[in-house]
Order: sequence, then structure tokens, then C-alpha cells
Amino acid sequence: MTLILGIDPGSRITGYGVVRDRGQGRGCEYVASGCIRTGSGELPERLQVVFRSVREVIRGHGPVTMGIERVFMARNADSALKLGQARGAAIVAAVEEGLEVAEYTATQVKQAVTGTGGASKEQVQLMVMHLLGLTQKPQIDASDALAIALCHAHTRSSLIPHGLGTARRRGGRLRL
Amino acid sequence: MTLILGIDPGSRITGYGVVRDRGQGRGCEYVASGCIRTGSGELPERLQVVFRSVREVIRGHGPVTMGIERVFMARNADSALKLGQARGAAIVAAVEEGLEVAEYTATQVKQAVTGTGGASKEQVQLMVMHLLGLTQKPQIDASDALAIALCHAHTRSSLIPHGLGTARRRGGRLRL
Repeated sequence: MTLILGIDPGSRITGYGVVRDRGQGRGCEYVASGCIRTGSGELPERLQVVFRSVREVIRGHGPVTMGIERVFMARNADSALKLGQARGAAIVAAVEEGLEVAEYTATQVKQAVTGTGGASKEQVQLMVMHLLGLTQKPQIDASDALAIALCHAHTRSSLIPHGLGTARRRGGRLRL
Repeated sequence: MTLILGIDPGSRITGYGVVRDRGQGRGCEYVASGCIRTGSGELPERLQVVFRSVREVIRGHGPVTMGIERVFMARNADSALKLGQARGAAIVAAVEEGLEVAEYTATQVKQAVTGTGGASKEQVQLMVMHLLGLTQKPQIDASDALAIALCHAHTRSSLIPHGLGTARRRGGRLRL
């Protein structure tokens, strides 16, 4: 029963999702999710909102590990810089609270959640709802963060031997 | 007598410089400077090094305000993302320690220190040495951070009326 945090950072909105990994391949259950909105203040204040909000989520729910999306291709240098700043604030909040942090590409997240790296955002959202038994659609940033948390849960559990076959452990889709 | 921190963030090396503004247009004196090297570890650990080192400098010297270089044009999206992450970690360290944070473009820093926005790095370094009465050349990242601190001191003081003429207050070079 491990609590896992997923973070989808952005310069304006940072999504977060917390899931509980039941362990032994029994899947995950939903704990919490939401969007951190940084508002329209100056950069230092906006980064402080990200830092403090991520810390608040960690202190409130007690996850021990965090997954965050790794970015390869930002649209341009300016958006990459802004995204990097939010990422930096979120990662520092996590490591300062003692969490291990793992990075996943968007393709890895889609692969883990839907079984295909080319899935659409809507497909990912529907699979997140399905895997966590949600009846309401989470906001897209929260849903993306939950997908990252599920990917992280899947990857972590595949590194801990518990009788699953090699084929299951290498990639493949999450099971309910 | 205000202590001012300057930060020149980078993905591998973050320069810092602390100066004491004597106030009333009497210039600044050198307090400390150096380079924070993040090493070759994983990203979360490297960002934690930036965060903790900046916090250590702040707690060790007690500056009340920080200047940091504003970046408009990064070489490419990947380097912008890395730079953004280091910036985010440094800014969060400062705001969490209660410092106000101001951003300056490279041109503003050069203008304040040398009198021309097109000055070379070497010219900036020589003027930093001159203005602070240094006999040894600081490392380039430390020197850039000191230049940012001097620019911040200059800009702050120009916003506080103390009998200087308008021409002096608007732009212009720092005086010894």
C-alpha cells in the first residue's frame, strides 16, 4: 500500500494526482487530484504557489514517491523556460519532503495507461477513469497527473519482483 | 546598508554574489561570491543542490533582496528547460526565505555596470572588480552574479529618492 504522487507541471496550471498502489499487482485506487493555479502575479510568487501547493499535497496525503512528466520537445525556448521554472519548483518541493522523484516521457505514460504510446489525451483520460473507478471526469491537468502517478506505480511495481511474468513486466498496459 | 544577493543561474553552475549597498549613492562593497556546482547526479538532486546552496548563502549572509538575470533568448528549448529548472529552484529558495526578487535582462545589467548595454563579458568583469575594489578576478559566473547584484543595488537606490538628479536616476552607470 504505497501512496504515489503524479505531477503534471505547467507555467499556469500544475496538475497533481495521488493514488494508492494496493501492491502485488492489484492495481491502484484514487486518493486525490486537482489543479494548482498560479494566478497572474509576478514570477517569484507564482513559483512559490507551485512549491507550497505541492508541499501541501505531500504533507496532506503522505506520498513517498513522485512521478513527473519528462519533457523532450517544448514548443519554443520561451515556453520551455517557463515550464522549466514550474518543474524546478515542484521537484524541489518533493525532494525537500524526502520523496524520490522519477521522470517519464509522455509516451511512457500513455503506454503504461492505455497500452499504446500514441493514445490521445481523451483516451488517456478515459483509461484513468476506468483504472481508478472514477464516475466523474477529472480536469485534464489532474487527469494527466493521475496518469503519471499510475505510470509510476506500474513502473515501480514492475521493478519489484512479485511473480509476474517478464512479458507483463516489460511495458504493457496496467491491469485493473 | 542593505545586503543584496545576485544570482546567475545555470543548469550546471549557478553563480552567486553578495554586496553591501552603503546607501545614499555611496556605492557597494564586496561581501561574498562563488559558484554552486550541481555535479553530475540526477536532476532532482541537482535542483536540490541549487535550492539548498542558495538558501545557505541567504542564511549565511542575510541579504534582504535578490536580483536574478531574466532570460529572453535561450539557445534552444532543451537548454531553456534546464535553465528554467535551475532558475525555479533558486527563486523558490529566495522567496521561501522572505527575499523580494527582481529580474534584470543581460542588457540592463551591462548598462548599469559598464554604462553600455553592448559590453563584453570581460568588460563587465573588469568593471565589477573596479566597482568593488577587488584585486583578484572572480570566476566568470561569480562575477556575473556580482554584476547582477550591483545592477539591483543601483536600480533599487534609484527608486529611493535621496537627492540625485533625474538624469542620474534614469539608467546611467554605477558610480564608485
